[in-house]
Amino acid sequence: MSFREELRSRRFWRSVLAELVGSLVLVAVILGASAPGQEDEVPALMQVAVAAGFSAVSLIHCFGEISGAQVNPAVTLAFLCTRKLDFLQVVSYLLAQCLGAVIGSGIIYMSLPVKSASRHLVNMINKDGNAGQALAMEIFATFQLVFTIFAVDDHRRREVREPGSLAIALSLTAGIMASGKFSGGSLNPARSLGPAIITGFWEHHWVYWIGPILGAVLGGISYEFFFASSASQEKLIA
Amino acid sequence: MSFREELRSRRFWRSVLAELVGSLVLVAVILGASAPGQEDEVPALMQVAVAAGFSAVSLIHCFGEISGAQVNPAVTLAFLCTRKLDFLQVVSYLLAQCLGAVIGSGIIYMSLPVKSASRHLVNMINKDGNAGQALAMEIFATFQLVFTIFAVDDHRRREVREPGSLAIALSLTAGIMASGKFSGGSLNPARSLGPAIITGFWEHHWVYWIGPILGAVLGGISYEFFFASSASQEKLIA
Amino acid sequence: MSFREELRSRRFWRSVLAELVGSLVLVAVILGASAPGQEDEVPALMQVAVAAGFSAVSLIHCFGEISGAQVNPAVTLAFLCTRKLDFLQVVSYLLAQCLGAVIGSGIIYMSLPVKSASRHLVNMINKDGNAGQALAMEIFATFQLVFTIFAVDDHRRREVREPGSLAIALSLTAGIMASGKFSGGSLNPARSLGPAIITGFWEHHWVYWIGPILGAVLGGISYEFFFASSASQEKLIA
Amino acid sequence: MSFREELRSRRFWRSVLAELVGSLVLVAVILGASAPGQEDEVPALMQVAVAAGFSAVSLIHCFGEISGAQVNPAVTLAFLCTRKLDFLQVVSYLLAQCLGAVIGSGIIYMSLPVKSASRHLVNMINKDGNAGQALAMEIFATFQLVFTIFAVDDHRRREVREPGSLAIALSLTAGIMASGKFSGGSLNPARSLGPAIITGFWEHHWVYWIGPILGAVLGGISYEFFFASSASQEKLIA
Repeated sequence: MSFREELRSRRFWRSVLAELVGSLVLVAVILGASAPGQEDEVPALMQVAVAAGFSAVSLIHCFGEISGAQVNPAVTLAFLCTRKLDFLQVVSYLLAQCLGAVIGSGIIYMSLPVKSASRHLVNMINKDGNAGQALAMEIFATFQLVFTIFAVDDHRRREVREPGSLAIALSLTAGIMASGKFSGGSLNPARSLGPAIITGFWEHHWVYWIGPILGAVLGGISYEFFFASSASQEKLIA
Repeated sequence: MSFREELRSRRFWRSVLAELVGSLVLVAVILGASAPGQEDEVPALMQVAVAAGFSAVSLIHCFGEISGAQVNPAVTLAFLCTRKLDFLQVVSYLLAQCLGAVIGSGIIYMSLPVKSASRHLVNMINKDGNAGQALAMEIFATFQLVFTIFAVDDHRRREVREPGSLAIALSLTAGIMASGKFSGGSLNPARSLGPAIITGFWEHHWVYWIGPILGAVLGGISYEFFFASSASQEKLIA
Repeated sequence: MSFREELRSRRFWRSVLAELVGSLVLVAVILGASAPGQEDEVPALMQVAVAAGFSAVSLIHCFGEISGAQVNPAVTLAFLCTRKLDFLQVVSYLLAQCLGAVIGSGIIYMSLPVKSASRHLVNMINKDGNAGQALAMEIFATFQLVFTIFAVDDHRRREVREPGSLAIALSLTAGIMASGKFSGGSLNPARSLGPAIITGFWEHHWVYWIGPILGAVLGGISYEFFFASSASQEKLIA
Repeated sequence: MSFREELRSRRFWRSVLAELVGSLVLVAVILGASAPGQEDEVPALMQVAVAAGFSAVSLIHCFGEISGAQVNPAVTLAFLCTRKLDFLQVVSYLLAQCLGAVIGSGIIYMSLPVKSASRHLVNMINKDGNAGQALAMEIFATFQLVFTIFAVDDHRRREVREPGSLAIALSLTAGIMASGKFSGGSLNPARSLGPAIITGFWEHHWVYWIGPILGAVLGGISYEFFFASSASQEKLIA
């Protein structure tokens, strides 16, 4: 299909809308679960991580067949690097994800009783740490998330019966738990962009783009190169 | 089947009973998990959210094939708006759900050691916030729940193998986590009605009817209109 | 098979051993997760409930096909009342479950660094409450657990594809969360018997036999009578 | 295949790489989730246990078909004792697991803002307890984990439809919750070795090798001997 035909197709716009709505829901759930309670007490990292993962389970169900339910610019760029998406799709998905994240952040900001609490919505690096340490943890956490996404994608083509949506969603929870004390646990540039735009707090914001994108591309390429079933199908038969 | 025939059928009454028992169990589990401990310490929002979602997993198993395990007036009204249930069913389901919720709340109230703790059972909006903010979060949280319900319903017809009951139940947990600090996290008018009747605390009660119902109808209609497989089956084949 | 033949069969003894090992593991996991930390701080109810449910997922896998992985005298008695087990099996399962629970409690007691902490292993009713309130919550919590077990059992015969082991296990978690603040959240007479024997603390112990057994029998009978597919198969076809 | 041929095969090296990457991810997730927050407050045991289990769900998906996703020397040795792996595989898996664990621990140590916090990464026995008590709990917790692994492995050969990856992963979570207050909850010698090498803290380190290995071998052998379907297939038909 040419660019022009794709832009006219209903299927194309439906998948872009799916990415927008999916990112909106994921970011609003994460930020809502991060909002502090009555006496400015911050909820446990665990609640944020579990809310993100459980929401991902339902998003993969809702949008998995429509757009792949990527809802994460780092994941979309990993699919670009492994040639699983074309350029027009990637650009439109990225715009939809960022727009959805900003709308989701706006809904939570408007609903916040005390606006000063909005600083808890922003991903921030550990006060005693430096940007390099936060970057390393974002790379690691996104690496294992995207590695899992590629493995599930690969298994689906071969009719494995275990629930892959859970594997992906729970690795998101595990990744946020692992990196939360170091970098705030983003794993998703759109999730960090939304609150940054709404609150105007941009310190170390580059960490949440470079880290997840590097981790995702590394995860995708290393799965495809070393572990994909297509990489050595003849060996498996032998 | 005419109204009169349906009222006589055993299948009809069984599904009404299923909604009653299901709502009773769900509301009693949520309220039991919300009850404060010995020194009036309130349990973490996370426990309430997880108890609700895990109970929903089992209710979908128990009643999914009998009545759809809606156990939520907002969900039932969303099915009415998308013409998936007829009027008699909707009215009887709503009555059963409210009755079940009141009985469930009564069981928990009677079992409460310190009756003054019953205020923790009622959904209340954040002290520093206003009703509009709580309303917005109830709309959002119920939107994503009902959107997921419609997506799973749609997939079931097409034989998808991932466990849909988990997707629905975990989106309930995620929704309660996201909205808990703002509105108390109801997503279900029956769950709010029960304790309100038992304790006589009705402040801002309308929020827990308007919010979930608006969110549910929006979620159901937007899924059917934009994403349902029937909406563009010819495109998927092409 | 006659009694004598059954006693000689390897299959019979294997299922009895399964109940013994299963009850040992379940009770030891619950008690281990209930043990207080260094400064006598009690873990959150949520941890105990999640540990019980997650352990149940694995026990259903290990022993589900061998003995049904009941690991709970209340469940076994509910199967007796609905004529799904014969008398010899029930008696031997009950003995195996109690023995397993006592051994499991013994392991945890021996491993406890500070023996006075063993009072946290015993199910106790809320200090401000009375035995009737704790009894009501044990009945309710076990009712919904056993109702789910019967529903999953019924679905299995009809080849439903959702994971039923999760529905059962997560309803155990939900039940413990709901009843924990009232009665300590037992749902299982063997789980209460073990620590009572080890610590010699027997106050209100009858609550943890009468409550779960009443709830289980009610749950089993009401499922069989109102909701079982066999109860009205002709209606479902019509 | 002779030793020499196996060393040359791509499949062999891929499975060794899988064990290395899997152990790296599991250990880094567990240690990251164990890292203390800003005011040196230690996260709840529950977060560490859930992070470990959820990460295991995704690792079983990623590497289950390649190397079995053992990522644990105790599991590998249990497979050796039951003759499911040959000697060359076992030695190379063990080396890969330990190397992966050390690299994973190194990543977390480098990312730690306050290096003195690294003592929270090491498995330590309860201050009031003794090594024997910690050993008993490690044996018990690993026993139930490996028993579940063998049961799922057995079921897979007979086409059972429940998700076995969840059963294994959630029994890891349950085991860590049960043993955490006693021994720190290792269940995996590689997970204990990594931080010990990085921090130089070796006290009671033998507990985390003897305990898990004894528990794993006991779990594997007792499943094979008493419960494996192959052990008494003729009885099941009869």
